[in-house]
Amino acid sequence: MATHLFRAMQTSEVCRVIQLYNHRAESLPPFEDETETTTDLSALKDADLYLICLKDDVIESIAQQIPSTSGIIAHTSGSQSILKSSNSAVFYPLQTFSKHSQLNYSEIPFCLEANSVEHLKMLKNIAGSISTKIYDISSAQRQTLHLAAVFVCNFTNHLYAIGEHICNEDHMPFDILKALIRETSEKVQTHSPSDVQTGPAVRRDSKTIARHLSQIKDNTQLDIYQLLTQSISQKHDKL
Amino acid sequence: MATHLFRAMQTSEVCRVIQLYNHRAESLPPFEDETETTTDLSALKDADLYLICLKDDVIESIAQQIPSTSGIIAHTSGSQSILKSSNSAVFYPLQTFSKHSQLNYSEIPFCLEANSVEHLKMLKNIAGSISTKIYDISSAQRQTLHLAAVFVCNFTNHLYAIGEHICNEDHMPFDILKALIRETSEKVQTHSPSDVQTGPAVRRDSKTIARHLSQIKDNTQLDIYQLLTQSISQKHDKL
Repeated sequence: MATHLFRAMQTSEVCRVIQLYNHRAESLPPFEDETETTTDLSALKDADLYLICLKDDVIESIAQQIPSTSGIIAHTSGSQSILKSSNSAVFYPLQTFSKHSQLNYSEIPFCLEANSVEHLKMLKNIAGSISTKIYDISSAQRQTLHLAAVFVCNFTNHLYAIGEHICNEDHMPFDILKALIRETSEKVQTHSPSDVQTGPAVRRDSKTIARHLSQIKDNTQLDIYQLLTQSISQKHDKL
Repeated sequence: MATHLFRAMQTSEVCRVIQLYNHRAESLPPFEDETETTTDLSALKDADLYLICLKDDVIESIAQQIPSTSGIIAHTSGSQSILKSSNSAVFYPLQTFSKHSQLNYSEIPFCLEANSVEHLKMLKNIAGSISTKIYDISSAQRQTLHLAAVFVCNFTNHLYAIGEHICNEDHMPFDILKALIRETSEKVQTHSPSDVQTGPAVRRDSKTIARHLSQIKDNTQLDIYQLLTQSISQKHDKL
């Protein structure tokens, strides 16, 4: 995430990255031509904004080691609450990052939180210079988002993996599913997912459901098929 | 699907739609400026290819009512086996269609099957004039694909609906999840889903999993969270 935020910040016209910290010296060379780097927290330069892109359990301890400053100290975690000190904040990009994929930073939703109106305004100014999607999100809401993200990202990716496995078992490449996967995600960019639900579960096609169940060889896949089919039926029964 | 296939055929330089049949006269006017239309099967003109875009349970009866022809009679179903007559075939576009969304037809995978080598070659020529993704798929494989599609399309869409529900309950718009949904589907265009699995389940983050479980208010959502978390753990345990 740090690498992506660094690149994203470079697209901004209102801020400039003046220094990059990493406790591992071997992680710094890729950035050395572009900004100052350090492995020493006490050598941090004074800045308007410090972004802590680290695991939840070290955020607080690192924040406390930043030399005294009037700048904003923001973490980027989806699940960690905002810290208590008056200059703490949250700068959470709701996206799945991987090192090698290129992202359109202007589409990333930034979820912002600060302990003062003034700091929130500054964060909005910075995030707004990168992306068009800026949200005021409380710590409690952010935890809700983090849960929702597990469903739409982590669990969805696992369904893709099951699709790949089912294809491969019958000597077909995963490639054949890719257009369908893309279009399924595109459809909900402009429609509510409930309004565009398709498939045997929503149309109560018990014949197809029974045939699918007879085709599945893996017990966990069978449980998933039954549970999600039941969940779709329930949801669309209530509508 | 018929409308989309009609539009797709119009992009082809090797074939031309000469007639459209629908038993409901009220469905035909949108096409009347573009091709001949009829509600009478006995009035079908002789053609090289007849595409039957209808529900599984009427395909065979309609196929039998087509006036005697040497043309190919292909259905477009993901689950129906190829019919027995020598000129039967399958022309199955593996995509989710909705009336109002625009599709890039050149990306749609066409799964083809015929009862003769010559007919298969003709179908490949036609499908290949629309799309770059052409596959030889047997009836048994097509049923497997249809099952895989339920996982990666219908079930995935239901996870999106759960994400929307979770956001709305905490007064956040579904919009905030859309970039994540899109990127999750983009990532697997170039990577195997198993290789890019993220989230608490794959990293055995039991603290986050416990917190998520405590956040979920709906019993079915709870069951889904637990089952998919267990399935991800199992899969990545074996790797």
